[in-house]
Amino acid sequence: MAVHISKQFDADLEDVRTRVLQMGGLVEDQIVKAIEGLATGDLALIEQVIADDHRVNALEVELDETCSRVIAKRQPAASDLRLLIAVIKTITDLERIGDEAEKIARMAKLVHTAGTVDMPRLELKHVANLALGMLRKALDTFARLDSKAAAQVVQQDRLVDDEFRSILRQLITFMMEDPRTITRSLEILFVAKALERIGDHSKNMAEYVVYMVEGRDVRHIRADAPPAKDPLAG
Amino acid sequence: MAVHISKQFDADLEDVRTRVLQMGGLVEDQIVKAIEGLATGDLALIEQVIADDHRVNALEVELDETCSRVIAKRQPAASDLRLLIAVIKTITDLERIGDEAEKIARMAKLVHTAGTVDMPRLELKHVANLALGMLRKALDTFARLDSKAAAQVVQQDRLVDDEFRSILRQLITFMMEDPRTITRSLEILFVAKALERIGDHSKNMAEYVVYMVEGRDVRHIRADAPPAKDPLAG
Repeated sequence: MAVHISKQFDADLEDVRTRVLQMGGLVEDQIVKAIEGLATGDLALIEQVIADDHRVNALEVELDETCSRVIAKRQPAASDLRLLIAVIKTITDLERIGDEAEKIARMAKLVHTAGTVDMPRLELKHVANLALGMLRKALDTFARLDSKAAAQVVQQDRLVDDEFRSILRQLITFMMEDPRTITRSLEILFVAKALERIGDHSKNMAEYVVYMVEGRDVRHIRADAPPAKDPLAG
Repeated sequence: MAVHISKQFDADLEDVRTRVLQMGGLVEDQIVKAIEGLATGDLALIEQVIADDHRVNALEVELDETCSRVIAKRQPAASDLRLLIAVIKTITDLERIGDEAEKIARMAKLVHTAGTVDMPRLELKHVANLALGMLRKALDTFARLDSKAAAQVVQQDRLVDDEFRSILRQLITFMMEDPRTITRSLEILFVAKALERIGDHSKNMAEYVVYMVEGRDVRHIRADAPPAKDPLAG
């Protein structure tokens, strides 16, 4: 990035970047705990995820304020302004990933409070690891300002979407074969949907890294990619 | 808002606000067409919604660039900067509402291509009108910078969520009674979910209006509101 006359400005930007990564770490932690809670039925862990969501929200509000303050005070030129605007967009996605972690925790609570009777046998670990992997890589590319790696994260969203469609098809089969599993299956569907959305948000974040580094907006560009598939299409 | 020394700056801000409202009008139009396409099975209309999503995306990218340019050129102080940052956040939500309209159109296409056999009898007009009403009001409060009315829009999101839960319960009943309706019911569920998300995004937009006008961040404040209900909770 550009060399600044003001060392204080460099320190401001570094502070912002560090706090985005801290917020990212907290959000990552929330997802890991929510998934563990779903797998193990550890209700204390589940409640902790739900209770901690306000911490993610508070970090977003604080970081928004800091970015505004830095912009007003330092009046940055193009590339630094790009970084700050990318941060403002990134933390919105991070906050919404936090919301999805909370939703997973709430579903985990429902599932385990009701007991695991009529539970469809279905593995969510794979899609969870894909989504979590995307978030981790998006944060890593943000930390290293690596736009090439960020472009790869954007591509990976397709894998999460494919996995979501596969889960959906399996759930439909379960529900058809045994309608008693319908309520439980829908809970699992909402968890899978939350994971799929974590992939979407991580993709957005990776796109902001490319924009930040290259000043090139790669959103909505799908040159050689086929059009998106419908979740219920075969 | 503040009086500016530079008339050109006033013109810049007015231009940004006008274009946000144009983008909002296009997004509104996309939802109306998608819902009409779902109700009537007008495939030409449905295809038009899918094809026009790129126009919404392009408006977001253009407006982001304009906001960055205005900030870099005019170096605005607190309240104007707040407006520009609120715009940057608002258009992200508008773009994602556009994505939800496209999703509804894709579901409408699936539903009507497959034929309406095994279709659950269920009315989505009410939730659609609620969500669309929230979007319209959010845009209107943005146009008039009316933070009081914006605070009311924030409250209305609860009605959309309640309606979504009611639809979900009805769909579960349909699926239980006749498992042949499962695939169709899930398509309807995804449409209802898209409408519920349009409510969420409109709520976000209304919160940005309050922030813009009052400089007070009302996100994540739910002083006298009960905690959010789980979609599958009774």
